[in-house]
Amino acid sequence: MPKISHRAENMPASPVRKLVPFAIQAKQKGLEVFHLNIGQPDIETPETALNAVKNNHLKIFEYALSEGNIEYRTALKDYYHSLGFEDLNTDNFIVTNGGSEALNFAISTLCDDGDEVIIPEPYYANYNGFTNAFNVKVVAVPSTIDTGFALPKIEEFEKKITSKTRAIIICNPGNPTGYLYTKEELQQLAEIALKHDIVIISDEVYREYVYDGKQQTSMLAFPEIAENCVIIDSESKRYSMCGARIGCLITRSKKIHDAAMLFAQARLSPVLLGQIAATAAHQNDSAYIMKVRAEYTHRRNVLVDLLNGIPGVICPKPKGAFYCVAELPVDDSDTFAQWLLEHYSNNGQTIMVAPMSGFYSNPELGKKQVRIAYVLKEADLRRSVELLEDALQKYKIEFNF
Amino acid sequence: MPKISHRAENMPASPVRKLVPFAIQAKQKGLEVFHLNIGQPDIETPETALNAVKNNHLKIFEYALSEGNIEYRTALKDYYHSLGFEDLNTDNFIVTNGGSEALNFAISTLCDDGDEVIIPEPYYANYNGFTNAFNVKVVAVPSTIDTGFALPKIEEFEKKITSKTRAIIICNPGNPTGYLYTKEELQQLAEIALKHDIVIISDEVYREYVYDGKQQTSMLAFPEIAENCVIIDSESKRYSMCGARIGCLITRSKKIHDAAMLFAQARLSPVLLGQIAATAAHQNDSAYIMKVRAEYTHRRNVLVDLLNGIPGVICPKPKGAFYCVAELPVDDSDTFAQWLLEHYSNNGQTIMVAPMSGFYSNPELGKKQVRIAYVLKEADLRRSVELLEDALQKYKIEFNF
Repeated sequence: MPKISHRAENMPASPVRKLVPFAIQAKQKGLEVFHLNIGQPDIETPETALNAVKNNHLKIFEYALSEGNIEYRTALKDYYHSLGFEDLNTDNFIVTNGGSEALNFAISTLCDDGDEVIIPEPYYANYNGFTNAFNVKVVAVPSTIDTGFALPKIEEFEKKITSKTRAIIICNPGNPTGYLYTKEELQQLAEIALKHDIVIISDEVYREYVYDGKQQTSMLAFPEIAENCVIIDSESKRYSMCGARIGCLITRSKKIHDAAMLFAQARLSPVLLGQIAATAAHQNDSAYIMKVRAEYTHRRNVLVDLLNGIPGVICPKPKGAFYCVAELPVDDSDTFAQWLLEHYSNNGQTIMVAPMSGFYSNPELGKKQVRIAYVLKEADLRRSVELLEDALQKYKIEFNF
Repeated sequence: MPKISHRAENMPASPVRKLVPFAIQAKQKGLEVFHLNIGQPDIETPETALNAVKNNHLKIFEYALSEGNIEYRTALKDYYHSLGFEDLNTDNFIVTNGGSEALNFAISTLCDDGDEVIIPEPYYANYNGFTNAFNVKVVAVPSTIDTGFALPKIEEFEKKITSKTRAIIICNPGNPTGYLYTKEELQQLAEIALKHDIVIISDEVYREYVYDGKQQTSMLAFPEIAENCVIIDSESKRYSMCGARIGCLITRSKKIHDAAMLFAQARLSPVLLGQIAATAAHQNDSAYIMKVRAEYTHRRNVLVDLLNGIPGVICPKPKGAFYCVAELPVDDSDTFAQWLLEHYSNNGQTIMVAPMSGFYSNPELGKKQVRIAYVLKEADLRRSVELLEDALQKYKIEFNF
């Protein structure tokens, strides 16, 4: 039997992969499972996008340009101008098959084997996959639940910078933490990027979904790091069109852009129909965004307040994205999450949550934590928290701790 | 300025990349350029696929399963059963964002840094990109125009197999050669794959487009190499839907499948709308395939006969795909292709061809050759050959050789 590569052997599985067979079994037993474990919103895609796909008059689904078609890159440029970054033009964008491919391009463009990227943890678990595929090492800097997962002290980053460090990856607002970095925190990152001539890869795919009247500060707000900054963007979360697979890589650096384009050319073309959908979605989208933001704000408020009402549960109120991290009064959230699917039910229902161990490079740090996505409607969230509270009581009795 | 990775610095540009600015200039001068250089057919996508997209009733463009949705994998399974491979089930398929991503997954799953893949040359130029991204070395075995680019002697492959060899990549029928491997040739490859426990990665995306009553033999026809075989497939060429970005990786090896799935999970999801289009296209497609095959057959006959009628031009008649390789009476086909765009025109028209140097690991081998795609309608092909013949005369006079 031929051997599998080390890079394949070392690929991390998704944090919920071990749970999937138990979820399938639970459903086969007839249980209703509330999925709090994934970032697939139940929010509808904008009608403009749905209609653009339905009303297309194409006779051939042709290759798009490797960098993305000009109509869509113009829509992106206009959107970024509306954010205040009026120096950007269509040449600053490379359209990708989801934010995933943009991350892939960023890492392969900047990093060789054995190079390092620094990431505040907990972090989006698939960063491990993209780095591992290219034999790039993640060096984690822990953030903690008691600060609501604020940026660790900048000295902690500097301590970890070596001659092999190529980039710092942040997600703002954060998956899984929901933390929204302040302008001051980002300013510190910009300074060390310049000082050490490394790149900030800023994953901003949840930019629109920030709450309490706050605004996200993009890493683009620091033009002094034009040569040291790559933005990862995606339409998946903005317009609830995760399956359209449209993202982009943005940089002011011609050097990074041109290098990333070589990877884009090798795979020929980003997806055509998704560009048509996204181009349409960007037209007059402010009512949509405001409505969805209000909905997520409401869900967050309901969810986080209820969670914090459960004895022994701690859940910082996230300022962005649609996740929260809750610390539970359990020994091991992996075991608990499996138990929820395998042994628990109440009135034919249970919940699936994402154990946080997979979001840390040191799994121990996430041992009592779970990520909960508020992608379900209010009634389902309320019922899910009831189930969680009930389950925690039963779990405590069953395991007598 | 931060450094770019070596893997980015070493990324090969597309064989026509140098020509693109000259093509743009030619168009700006008002010239009509016939594009014989790319594999974008002018054939319409099947109406079933176009209509499935128009008539979709989705309210949310949701994530697909990482391995592809069951409806589409069922359509793939049924299609492969119709080819005679009735042992395959939906678990043998991983749906990818184009054949490109399937190649990416195959190489990353099988190869580590410094590992080698053997490829008969000339070969699809982007194989260089996908291997380079993972620091995998291409070891080429030359095939020659005088045999019509038949498989080199199997001893030539065996000579190149080392402890670092992980796979042999073939494209059947071939881009750029149009060569269709015989069952006997493939049998020899199967035998050395087993003998040396390496994998055959068989890129079969042009399978439907074989001519003269021939049939393509899939590498799946050798069940004895179940553990040593990966098929790359795509809907792009079959249904003229290159921009839908739907391909797949097929293997009977559970070990390879499960390892490749880890890369598929890291990027979450293949594109949803393309799966809808492709699922529909597979229903009752035989009339479409027959019609398109007849059209390509006719175009090939017209093109290749006309090319061979030009003094000094040699062009083997391809048995598959929609490319041919022609040897021209020129000193350097890169220079000639640029001259066609920069200095030549006849009645306001010129042609763009792909110099073959970029399709060989040793560019010298392709120095007098060009790849011509017969993706244009007959009248345009006829005019293109007239232009080529006229251009060759003028080029000869201008450079006096």
